[in-house]
Amino acid sequence: MFCDQIQPQILGISPYVPGKPISELQRELGLKRISKLASNENPLGASLKVTAAIQAEFADIARYPDGNAFYLKSELAKFFKVTEQQVALGNGSNEVLELAARVFAGPGDEIVYSQYAFAVYPICAQAVGATGVEVPAKNWGHDLPAMLKAITPKTKMVFLANPNNPTGTMFRRAEWEAFISQVPKQVIVVLDEAYVEYVEDADYANGREYLETYPNLLISRTFSKAYGLASLRVGFMLGSEEVIAYLNRLREPFNINQFAQVGAVAALQDQAFVNKGVALNKVGMQQMVNAFADMGLNYIPSYGNFVCVEFAQKPGLAAEINQALLKQGVIVRPLAGYKMPDHLRVSIGSVAENQHFIDVLKSLKSLYA
Amino acid sequence: MFCDQIQPQILGISPYVPGKPISELQRELGLKRISKLASNENPLGASLKVTAAIQAEFADIARYPDGNAFYLKSELAKFFKVTEQQVALGNGSNEVLELAARVFAGPGDEIVYSQYAFAVYPICAQAVGATGVEVPAKNWGHDLPAMLKAITPKTKMVFLANPNNPTGTMFRRAEWEAFISQVPKQVIVVLDEAYVEYVEDADYANGREYLETYPNLLISRTFSKAYGLASLRVGFMLGSEEVIAYLNRLREPFNINQFAQVGAVAALQDQAFVNKGVALNKVGMQQMVNAFADMGLNYIPSYGNFVCVEFAQKPGLAAEINQALLKQGVIVRPLAGYKMPDHLRVSIGSVAENQHFIDVLKSLKSLYA
Repeated sequence: MFCDQIQPQILGISPYVPGKPISELQRELGLKRISKLASNENPLGASLKVTAAIQAEFADIARYPDGNAFYLKSELAKFFKVTEQQVALGNGSNEVLELAARVFAGPGDEIVYSQYAFAVYPICAQAVGATGVEVPAKNWGHDLPAMLKAITPKTKMVFLANPNNPTGTMFRRAEWEAFISQVPKQVIVVLDEAYVEYVEDADYANGREYLETYPNLLISRTFSKAYGLASLRVGFMLGSEEVIAYLNRLREPFNINQFAQVGAVAALQDQAFVNKGVALNKVGMQQMVNAFADMGLNYIPSYGNFVCVEFAQKPGLAAEINQALLKQGVIVRPLAGYKMPDHLRVSIGSVAENQHFIDVLKSLKSLYA
Repeated sequence: MFCDQIQPQILGISPYVPGKPISELQRELGLKRISKLASNENPLGASLKVTAAIQAEFADIARYPDGNAFYLKSELAKFFKVTEQQVALGNGSNEVLELAARVFAGPGDEIVYSQYAFAVYPICAQAVGATGVEVPAKNWGHDLPAMLKAITPKTKMVFLANPNNPTGTMFRRAEWEAFISQVPKQVIVVLDEAYVEYVEDADYANGREYLETYPNLLISRTFSKAYGLASLRVGFMLGSEEVIAYLNRLREPFNINQFAQVGAVAALQDQAFVNKGVALNKVGMQQMVNAFADMGLNYIPSYGNFVCVEFAQKPGLAAEINQALLKQGVIVRPLAGYKMPDHLRVSIGSVAENQHFIDVLKSLKSLYA
């Protein structure tokens, strides 16, 4: 009845499909032991300093958040050695990604991203009525030279993820520098570094180092992964003051809830917690890939806190394995929505959670061996 | 440098100016006793059941929120006797108001709202590049017959607030029914009922009663006022399943943080807390208007948890009073941004906070008497 009243691009949006929440699986199957390895969450939870900071905020629960997020912006500015005017905050990095698209792109414009990149990029393009240009991946990762060639006079924005989600691939300093130095100066490059904290490779191109040289560069970061604040929703972008000011114009005044603001400040101040999670991830990743090797399963080498394992032995096998895992209380992420129907993405959890997954997978051997 | 790259409407956005946070005034003036009566917050805080529910959620702080907000939607559907498909949730009602504008309006379209209505309505129109059509107010409130006449073939949406913020005015059942029955069926009417819980007038037109008759009606509600959850950010819209589905297409998957979800469920289940706040508001409103009468000050009779007091004795007086109040630790809301330069909006706080404001205002008598 109202379908001719809405903005034409709305009908074309395929909303993001989140990982199955634990509570939903419990409702459906009545299971007790559940290991959720579906959303790249932090198995350690969050720093206890975060909890303490939030507790102290209960007295002001009925007060609006600080619309300007004074303390959080100050802390981020200090941490990243930028000005407060170079920081835009979002309700998760999802919101800053969408804000950037809404500021720079509309119908007739193009937004470039890679095949097998984060599903939110094509959704952002669709939501603003722009044309999404998907560049074929190379070895499951970004093909930066091909992405550079895909930039046309209509291109307003390029989304890159490093490491990439869901594949875990990483591009290196030399490739990145060759790319960013050749992107036309007016094209906004959004570099999504949601998983940056897990990367230990010296050849990683950390976006922060390039902000001064490229005012068209926006770096997206999140507190949902290594900082363990996914429930609170807080992400941010760093960029040049001019570009950040445009994002802040469109930003809703109270988009960051107050618990998220104080939680993020406390989280940022506890880098020891981050380091602990990164160390645990390293152990867990090794546990996971060793198990895959034992089982004779292929996987995509990953720089994040997750890994994609392949079940290409027959069509539909990955979906079948996924269902069998669910029935035994293990939630991983099927990737059919990413057109990777033969892969499952598995988050690195605690050692016990990883083992739960490995044990169940081993018990399913007759399906894939 | 990038100003010719952004969407043309972005430069025209005048971001919403929030009430001064307490922490900001403390930073600036080093004051100890501060009464914030600037943001229509609940002086009772929130239900203790909310705090308990959030405490229980700390263990899952690193987990993503339930993207579909299963429990909160179920509770809201039960409470309002609608289906879960008739509920769209937002990061505060601000987000659902903006989502509605983004779904239905774009460049070339018109959005109608009243003079002296909530500042977010013109911002929403501007943010989507639509033309905002402001209809002159009548006695500081909505002139519904004039708003009806302002609807043209280009009108995609009408924003109404009942009671209205910042003026506190209310329109009645007969006026509302004459209006909504004559609005063209394809024009979306957004009825913002952020302050509905404070209204005790039997002649109030509660939007919920009209949902079945008008599929073009969207009701906006919030947990930020009577429920005392402003810090958490949760608002929602009720409407027909079709219209709500469009909003949910554009909604970001994790827009409601998990503490807000469990907090709102607990808040909804504690109507006794809401009733206590409403009773306190009634007492406080009487305290406030009695004091205005004593001081010989005019005010706009209000149905919300706030009241606008007038200082029209000389130009600039309201701003002067506002500064003098701030210096003594009382934060109220100046309304120059609403083109009501002679008024200050004062939230009804606790009896002690109200008295703090009244005492300071009395001490300033030489300025306005």
